[in-house]
Amino acid sequence: MKIVDVTTTTFRYISNTVRDSEGHGHPGDPHEAKQSLLTIKTDEGVEGYCFGANTAVIESLVKPLLIGQDPFYREYLWQMLRERQRLHLGSLSDRVLTSVDLALWDLAGRAVGQPVHKLLGAFRDKVPAYASTMCGDDLPGGLATPEDYANFAKWCIFERGYPAFKLHTWQPPYEGAPSVKRDLEACAAVREAVGPDVDLMLDPFHYYSREESLQLARGLEKLDYLWMEEPMAEHSMSSFVWLAEQSDLLIVGPETAEGKHYARAEWIKAGAADVIRTGVGDVGGITPAMKCVHLCESFNMSVEIHGGGVGNLHVLCAMGIPGRYYERGLLHPFIDWEEVPAWLNKRDDPMDSEGFVHVSQDPGLGQDINWDYINDNLVK
Amino acid sequence: MKIVDVTTTTFRYISNTVRDSEGHGHPGDPHEAKQSLLTIKTDEGVEGYCFGANTAVIESLVKPLLIGQDPFYREYLWQMLRERQRLHLGSLSDRVLTSVDLALWDLAGRAVGQPVHKLLGAFRDKVPAYASTMCGDDLPGGLATPEDYANFAKWCIFERGYPAFKLHTWQPPYEGAPSVKRDLEACAAVREAVGPDVDLMLDPFHYYSREESLQLARGLEKLDYLWMEEPMAEHSMSSFVWLAEQSDLLIVGPETAEGKHYARAEWIKAGAADVIRTGVGDVGGITPAMKCVHLCESFNMSVEIHGGGVGNLHVLCAMGIPGRYYERGLLHPFIDWEEVPAWLNKRDDPMDSEGFVHVSQDPGLGQDINWDYINDNLVK
Repeated sequence: MKIVDVTTTTFRYISNTVRDSEGHGHPGDPHEAKQSLLTIKTDEGVEGYCFGANTAVIESLVKPLLIGQDPFYREYLWQMLRERQRLHLGSLSDRVLTSVDLALWDLAGRAVGQPVHKLLGAFRDKVPAYASTMCGDDLPGGLATPEDYANFAKWCIFERGYPAFKLHTWQPPYEGAPSVKRDLEACAAVREAVGPDVDLMLDPFHYYSREESLQLARGLEKLDYLWMEEPMAEHSMSSFVWLAEQSDLLIVGPETAEGKHYARAEWIKAGAADVIRTGVGDVGGITPAMKCVHLCESFNMSVEIHGGGVGNLHVLCAMGIPGRYYERGLLHPFIDWEEVPAWLNKRDDPMDSEGFVHVSQDPGLGQDINWDYINDNLVK
Repeated sequence: MKIVDVTTTTFRYISNTVRDSEGHGHPGDPHEAKQSLLTIKTDEGVEGYCFGANTAVIESLVKPLLIGQDPFYREYLWQMLRERQRLHLGSLSDRVLTSVDLALWDLAGRAVGQPVHKLLGAFRDKVPAYASTMCGDDLPGGLATPEDYANFAKWCIFERGYPAFKLHTWQPPYEGAPSVKRDLEACAAVREAVGPDVDLMLDPFHYYSREESLQLARGLEKLDYLWMEEPMAEHSMSSFVWLAEQSDLLIVGPETAEGKHYARAEWIKAGAADVIRTGVGDVGGITPAMKCVHLCESFNMSVEIHGGGVGNLHVLCAMGIPGRYYERGLLHPFIDWEEVPAWLNKRDDPMDSEGFVHVSQDPGLGQDINWDYINDNLVK
C-alpha cells in the first residue's frame, strides 16, 4: 500500500469559545471559526483522518515526504519527521507530528477493520473520566468565585456522574490572579462541596515561584487532593525535583516541556515528578505516547494522560499501567459539553452515567465524520 | 473474537545437536528429538501459532485463563499472566509468556492479513545479521582451537556473506576452560583472519571475576572488538557498573537477568551497560520486548536483540532505534544452518548474499508451517 495524496480541508463552524489576552478559552458569543482536517490517501482507496491539522506546514513540509511511502511504516515515518524537526524548528512542531501519526493509525485501523487500541494490543474498553474545568474567569455564575467552582463541581459529580474533578484556576489577565490564597480557597470550597471521597486535582497558574508552589502543595495536602500539575515553568526541571522532594502531594508532569519521551526519561531519572504526564498532542502522536507509557511502566511509574480526544482514549485503552483517568473538557457551566461537534455525527468520547468514557469499536480512531457538514461549509 | 481453545502439539524430528554436561549445544549424531507447537484458536476460525511451547504449563495454567478472552487484548492478557507469575514461581516463566504473546501476535496478524512488524508500525524490512557461533568444543576441525574459529570466521564473512561475527568461546566442561588467555587468543585469531573492518563480538564464560572480565575487555579493546556480553553473573549489577566505568569496550546487557523491562530500567539508571540487550525469549514476548526498546529509545541507548527467530526479527523491523544486528545461529562448521527445520516449508530468517535477513510480508509472524510433517510425526 502506498500513500498517493496528503490533503488538508478547512471548513467553518460556529464556536462558543473565545480566547482571553493570554490565550485561555472561555465561554463567549457564538461566532464563526475554522477547523481543519488532514486526510492521508492510499492507492488502495483506504484513507486516514485527523482533525486539527496545521494546513500550511503539512502542505509544504509533510506532504512531499509522505507521498509514495507505505502508510504501515509508522515508526519509520515518525522518526523521519522527528529528524526533520531539527531543520524546521518552530514549524514542524510536535503537534504536526501528532496529526500525521494519528491519521496513520486511523488509516491502519480502517485498512484492517480494527480499532486502534486493538492494533496496539488492548487492555480495556472504558476509562473513568474526570471533569476538567476551563480556567477561572469573571463571568457571574461562571467560574468567577470559589463558590462557582463548588457549585459546578457538585453538578459534575452528583448530577452528571463524573467520579473526579480538576480545577484550572485563575490566571492573568483576570484581576487578582495569580493568587495562591485564592486558588486554595477555590480548592477548599470544592472539597467541602463534594465531600471527602471524591478525587480532586489542581492545574494552577504555571509561573509560580518555588515557595508559592510549595505553599500550594502544602495546602492541597491538607485538603486531601490527589495531584497538582505544572505550578512552575517546566523548563526548570530542578524546581520540580525541589518541590517533589518536599511535598507529599503527588506532583504530575511534565506536560508542556518539549522533548517527548526523552524529556520524560530525564524527569524520571531526576525524580522530578511522582507521576508522569504525557498526551498524544504533547509528544507527537500515539507512537511516542506509547513509548512514554512503556518507559514509565519500566520504572513502575503511573502515567496521567494530558487532554481528551480519541488519540488519547485509544492510548488509555492500550495502557498496561492504566492512567487513572481520561481528561474530559475543558468544561464550564455555560457550555454544553455533550453537544456533538458539527463535524461529527456523534461524540467520540461518550461518557456513561457512572463516569466511564467508552472507546469506539469501529475501525481506526472510530470517529463518525459528518462529511455533509464539512462539504457544505468548506473554506475555499 | 473469542479464544475457544488453546492446544499444544508435540512431534518428533531428527536433531543434529547434542548437549554437554553444562547444557550447551554442540554438533552430534542425528537422533530423535521433540518439538512442540502452541495453537490459540478462535470462534472465527483464525488461529495463532508459536513453536517451542511448554506444554504442561500451558495446559494447566495458561489455557484456563485464555479461554473466552478476546485475543486482541494482548496487553491485558500479558499483564494478567505476568501477575500470575508471582503465584507460580518457577513454572509460569517468561518463556511461557513469550510463547503465548508470540501466538497472539501471530493470530492478530493472520486475522487482519498483515505481518506483525506492520501492526507494530514498521521501520524496515531487512536487518544485517551476524554469525553467532556455538560454544567452543573439542571436535577436530570444529571449534576446538583459535585457528578453528579463525577458519570458520573466514568462511562466514568471505564465503557466506555475514557482515559480522560473534564468538561463544569455551566453557566447562571443556578442558582448560574458562580461560581469559585462550578466549583472547581465539578473538585475536579471528581478528587477524577477517581483517580490521569486520565487526566482531564476544560472548564468553559467564562467571568470570571482575578482574578477569576487565582483563578480557582490555584485550578486546586492543583487538578493536565491537562489544562483549555477560562475562559475569548478571545478578550482580554492581559488577557491571564497575566494568562499564573502567572499560572503553561496549558492554552489552542484561540478557539472562530476570526482570523484563523493569530490570533494564535499573541497568540504564545505574549505568551498568553501554548497550541494552533484550529478546522476546528473555522478557516474555514481543509486547515487553517493544517496551524495552521504547525504554532504551527514551534514553537514546542502543538495543541489541538476543537470539534469532521470527519474533525477534519482527521486533528488529519495528524498532525506531535499530538494533545493529540480527543474531543468526548458533552456527558451527559441522552444521548446515540453511537447512530448513522439518516443521517449516522454508526458513523464517532467510539471509541474502549481502548478509541481510528479510522479514516475511506474510500475515502474522509469517512462518510457512509444514503441517503434513507435523501430522505425520505426532507424539501421542
